Amino acid sequence: MNKPLPSGARIGILGGGQLGRMLSVAAARLGFQCHIFEPGDSPPAGLVAAKVIKADYLDLPAVAAFAENVDVVTFEFENIPTETLDLIETLKPVRPGRTALAASQDRVLEKRFLTDLGLATAAFSVVDSLDDLQDAIDRIGLPAILKTRRFGYDGKGQVRIGKPDEAEAAFQALKGAPVILEAMVDFSREVSVIGARSMDGTVICYDPGENVHRNGILHTTTVPANLGLGQQTDAAILTGRILNALDYVGVMGVELFVTDQGLLVNEIAPRVHNSGHWTQNGCVIDQFEQHIRAIAGWPLGDGARHSDVVMTNLIGSDADDPATLAGDASAGIHLYGKTESREGRKMGHINRIISAKS
Amino acid sequence: MNKPLPSGARIGILGGGQLGRMLSVAAARLGFQCHIFEPGDSPPAGLVAAKVIKADYLDLPAVAAFAENVDVVTFEFENIPTETLDLIETLKPVRPGRTALAASQDRVLEKRFLTDLGLATAAFSVVDSLDDLQDAIDRIGLPAILKTRRFGYDGKGQVRIGKPDEAEAAFQALKGAPVILEAMVDFSREVSVIGARSMDGTVICYDPGENVHRNGILHTTTVPANLGLGQQTDAAILTGRILNALDYVGVMGVELFVTDQGLLVNEIAPRVHNSGHWTQNGCVIDQFEQHIRAIAGWPLGDGARHSDVVMTNLIGSDADDPATLAGDASAGIHLYGKTESREGRKMGHINRIISAKS
Repeated sequence: MNKPLPSGARIGILGGGQLGRMLSVAAARLGFQCHIFEPGDSPPAGLVAAKVIKADYLDLPAVAAFAENVDVVTFEFENIPTETLDLIETLKPVRPGRTALAASQDRVLEKRFLTDLGLATAAFSVVDSLDDLQDAIDRIGLPAILKTRRFGYDGKGQVRIGKPDEAEAAFQALKGAPVILEAMVDFSREVSVIGARSMDGTVICYDPGENVHRNGILHTTTVPANLGLGQQTDAAILTGRILNALDYVGVMGVELFVTDQGLLVNEIAPRVHNSGHWTQNGCVIDQFEQHIRAIAGWPLGDGARHSDVVMTNLIGSDADDPATLAGDASAGIHLYGKTESREGRKMGHINRIISAKS
Repeated sequence: MNKPLPSGARIGILGGGQLGRMLSVAAARLGFQCHIFEPGDSPPAGLVAAKVIKADYLDLPAVAAFAENVDVVTFEFENIPTETLDLIETLKPVRPGRTALAASQDRVLEKRFLTDLGLATAAFSVVDSLDDLQDAIDRIGLPAILKTRRFGYDGKGQVRIGKPDEAEAAFQALKGAPVILEAMVDFSREVSVIGARSMDGTVICYDPGENVHRNGILHTTTVPANLGLGQQTDAAILTGRILNALDYVGVMGVELFVTDQGLLVNEIAPRVHNSGHWTQNGCVIDQFEQHIRAIAGWPLGDGARHSDVVMTNLIGSDADDPATLAGDASAGIHLYGKTESREGRKMGHINRIISAKS
């Protein structure tokens, strides 16, 4: 049942954006064929995949036909409707599995899962009403951030509350969605670990990357991160604990805050992660291939880093003149083939090689 | 006219085998879309390309439609019919151009081009009749190799002549095709250089790789090759001279024999080359991306090597159990998605990382 997929097997990917695209290329390199399920037009992944199914995630007959035609299903984003997953699970294995998805889809479940594991997170409080919010502010203090429990990404679905009289407006701004109040964390830097776990329970972690955001969107990831050896080890160990606790199969991104009190887990993403794109030019086996190896039941590859890298996201018009970007000869350029560049839209990224591994 | 292609431009590739497949993936990474022209069924490149045109190379209306729909045309093999190229050239730029193709399609023209440049090759003689062959043997000596002037690959179209009385049978075996007699070269090793030249005339060469063949097919390429620094420099310089003399645009493979008298050019291939596959896991910019950059009018990337690599071809049944191959964690695995494994057929390759660059 858990035999490795043979070359030529078909992998279904829910979502046809850039992550699905880079997964599809990695899968092809290993001899697999990808079927992309995506409701939008002209998905970036469609240009490098064996097949594209254009349908809504709630079009259950289309979902069933998709699942019937592949050997395993994975995804590039975590907010997949429950009904969709329920159906697919009756037909084919979904990797990573529901436990990990459930823990990452809801900020409250995520924080409870992490704290139950003994890991530190920002102080938080579930908020179902304006009264709850007042209590939460009393307990956690200000400034704090009010976040929707579900469907947040790239800084969306978040409002900062600096003073007590901003609370009501913040609550209204999130339009009655279930929310959580989180303490602002006083951190010196944000790092993330890309970890992978295979079907036989082997865990590998890539070296932590240090992340800088602009306007709520990841701007750069730098490896090595400015971390002591002890913190690097701590980061890998806690990632391994998360992966093992979820009986996880695949690649996960774990975002961490570095504070005076140690490492604090900000968020887990049950998928390949923007902060792991540097692995494409810094390692022999990148995060995309690692994910495909894991869900195919293959052994994981070496996560060793051969170079120091700075990954820079290309947002909006940043990628409008790619030939000029290519003028930096030591830069690996990765463009997503999106036809329209919009403000704030991720169009590609560049991995600049700084030196051999330091 | 020679402006760099913008992201999203379409690149036409003649040939849908593994080289076309890896070119297509590299092009996608830079945001281009590939159209693959291939007469055979289920071409490996078709699974990672935006479009596949299945037609014969001499189906000129299909060729014209293909060319109309792309911005530039390149190829993965050199034996393209003249009529096909004549037609495409009236519609779209073909890179690399006809001069290079002409020089590589015919072993006699190739050797004359090289010797005119002052480069050493094996002694050779044009053979149009059995009488010519006797004269050639008298001049060159035995053992020698009788080769078809055109359409040879992987040791096909070649017969070794060890003794005078084998001459007639060798001549008959090649069925009246135009042939050339080449002296056997007493070489200590075979190396190859993968060179690239951009539209503005910049040349970069990857480090030479050392090739070992089995049954006439490339078995391994090892970098670094066992060459002195002077020979490494000579190899790069002569490759640059070849590229410049042809006003070449794209990647070329140059096969060299290392002899007591110095380097001797065995063959040039006006395309990405099997002995350059190691660059996928040994360099930030691999030969496939380098070729796409060149034909797109983009600047070339850095050809620097970060690791020592042994590339091993997976022939026939070698790739039947890929998950076991993946058990070598430091090996980059590349499978071509061919549905049927046949004896002698190239199914994939493995790049084993030996160490950081030595």
